[in-house]
Amino acid sequence: MHLLVAGTVAIDDIKTPSSSRKGLMGGSAAYAAMASSFFAPTRIVGIIGKDFPAEHINTLRQREICTEGIEHSEGESFYWSGEYHDNMNERTTHEVAVNVLDAYTPALPASYQSSEIIVLANMSPTNQIDVLKQCSTPQFVVADTMDIWIQTEGKALDDLLTRIDMLVINESEAKLFTQTGNLVQAGRQLLQAGPRYVIIKTGEHGALLFGPDQDFFRVGAYPLDVVEDPTGAGDAFLGGLAGYLAQEDKPIDFSVIKRSLSPATVMASFTCEAFSVERLASIGRADIDLRLNAYAGYTQL
Amino acid sequence: MHLLVAGTVAIDDIKTPSSSRKGLMGGSAAYAAMASSFFAPTRIVGIIGKDFPAEHINTLRQREICTEGIEHSEGESFYWSGEYHDNMNERTTHEVAVNVLDAYTPALPASYQSSEIIVLANMSPTNQIDVLKQCSTPQFVVADTMDIWIQTEGKALDDLLTRIDMLVINESEAKLFTQTGNLVQAGRQLLQAGPRYVIIKTGEHGALLFGPDQDFFRVGAYPLDVVEDPTGAGDAFLGGLAGYLAQEDKPIDFSVIKRSLSPATVMASFTCEAFSVERLASIGRADIDLRLNAYAGYTQL
Repeated sequence: MHLLVAGTVAIDDIKTPSSSRKGLMGGSAAYAAMASSFFAPTRIVGIIGKDFPAEHINTLRQREICTEGIEHSEGESFYWSGEYHDNMNERTTHEVAVNVLDAYTPALPASYQSSEIIVLANMSPTNQIDVLKQCSTPQFVVADTMDIWIQTEGKALDDLLTRIDMLVINESEAKLFTQTGNLVQAGRQLLQAGPRYVIIKTGEHGALLFGPDQDFFRVGAYPLDVVEDPTGAGDAFLGGLAGYLAQEDKPIDFSVIKRSLSPATVMASFTCEAFSVERLASIGRADIDLRLNAYAGYTQL
Repeated sequence: MHLLVAGTVAIDDIKTPSSSRKGLMGGSAAYAAMASSFFAPTRIVGIIGKDFPAEHINTLRQREICTEGIEHSEGESFYWSGEYHDNMNERTTHEVAVNVLDAYTPALPASYQSSEIIVLANMSPTNQIDVLKQCSTPQFVVADTMDIWIQTEGKALDDLLTRIDMLVINESEAKLFTQTGNLVQAGRQLLQAGPRYVIIKTGEHGALLFGPDQDFFRVGAYPLDVVEDPTGAGDAFLGGLAGYLAQEDKPIDFSVIKRSLSPATVMASFTCEAFSVERLASIGRADIDLRLNAYAGYTQL
C-alpha cells in the first residue's frame, strides 16, 4: 500500500553533552518518512522556507520519498533549537520559530490523494484534519501529537481523535491529556476518545499498545549503549510502524499491529545513533533485518 | 532445589494517596520469601524485635516458609514509614529505625546450610556476606542492594559482587553505582564488577537482563491499572525469579534466567495490588498461572 506522511519539515540546531550541530534537517514528517521509506513507497507533505537547504530535500529523494507535496514558501523554515542534558532523557528547548507554518494549509497533490496508509505526524491537529479530509480512500490513519496541541488546540485534537484509527503518543503527553499518572489507565482513557488503537511511547523503555476488548501488548526498546541524538526517535517509531503496516498489505488487526512494534522500535533506535536523519540515510534494508533479528532475540523467549 | 532468603523483616507504616496503614509486615526478606514460596520450599533468615506481631509470622508459615532462621530479639523491630505520591512512582521516607538490625549478625540454622539457591535480599552487604559464608553448597547466589549501601558500605558491596552469580538492582541505584545515565552501559559495567548476570529493574516499565558474551534480554512489566501499594514489588520480583530457578531444578544458564523474568514480573505485579504482602497471602498457584499466561500474550508474538 502507499503511505502518506504529513507533518513538519524543519531546520534544527541541536546541542548534546558531546557535540553541537546546526542547520540539520528536522521535523516530524522528515523523520517519519525516512523511516517508513524502507518498508513502503512514501509520499511526504509539509512546508519549507526559502532558507531550507536543497541537500536535505536530496536526502529524502535518495530514499525514493516523493517530495511533490512539500510546499516551497517565501518565508523562513520552521526552526527548532534544543539541548540535551546528561543522560539524554531531558532536553531544553532554546528557540522555536513557527515561521512558514503559521499560515500553512496543507494541500495534497492529486497523486497523493489515494494513499491508503495515512501518517499524521506531529503538527497542529487542524492541519492534520486538513490533510485527512483530502484523502479519498484511507485504509488506516495513525496520528501523533504533542503537549502544545493538548494545551492550545484541545477542541481540534478531540475532533481529530474521532477520525483516526490509531493514536501514537509520548508517555508524558498521555499523562497530560488524561490527567492520570497510571499508563494503563491513560491508554484506556485515550481509547475512549476515539481511536481503536493507542500506543504510548516510553522512550528508552519501549512502548505500550492498547486495542479494543482490553487487548494489550508491550515491547521494550532496542538497547543502545550510545545515544548520539534522540531527536526524532518517536517520529521514526511512527514511520517504522506505519511502513510495516503498508508493507504487509493485509487487513490491519491487533495481530499485525503487535508485529509493527518491532520495526517501529528498531527504526527509532537507528535514529538515536546519529544527529538528524543521518543514520537513517546511511543504512540499508540488510541493517534493519539484522537488527530486527537481534531485537527478537532480546525480547522473545 | 531449596531456597534460602536472607534480608530484612520489618514493621511498615505506609501512606498512599487513597489510604493509610500501620503495623504492616515489611522488609525485603518477607516480600521475597512470600513470592518464592509459590515455586520452591523456602527458608527465611532475618531478625525481629519483641514488638513484632505474631500474626505476621503466621502469614509466612501459612505459605509453608520455614521461619526457624528468624531471630527473636529483645529490641524493637526494624521500622520504616513512608508515603507515596500522586502516580505512586515517587515516595518519601518519613522514618527509618534500624533497631535490632544494628547489632545483627545472621546465624543460619544447621538445616538451612545446604540450601542451593541463595537469595540475599536487600540488607547490608556485610550481613549478606555473613549469610553466604554459612552456605555449604550454594548453586546460585542472587543479591539485591540499595542506595544506602552503595553510599556507605562501598567496600563490602564490592566484595559481595565478586561472590555472587547475579545482581538484581533498581534503575536509579544502577545509575548511582556506575555513575552513568545509560542503562545499557550501567548493566555492562555492573557485570565487570563480578556477577555473571545483572538485572536492572525499571519499575512499572519492566527489567533488563545482562549476561556474559553480550547476552541481553528485556521484559515489560505486567500492566496494572490500579497500584495500591508498590512497596516490596522489587523484592517480590527477586523472590519470584529465584523461586522459578529453584523449581526448574536444572543448570542455570541464560536461557533459564530469561524465563525466570516472567514469574518475577508477575509476582511483583500481585504485590502492588494490596498493602504489604496481603495480596501474596491471598492468591494461589492457579492465580499465578493465569497471570503468567496473560503476561505471555502481552509480550510474546
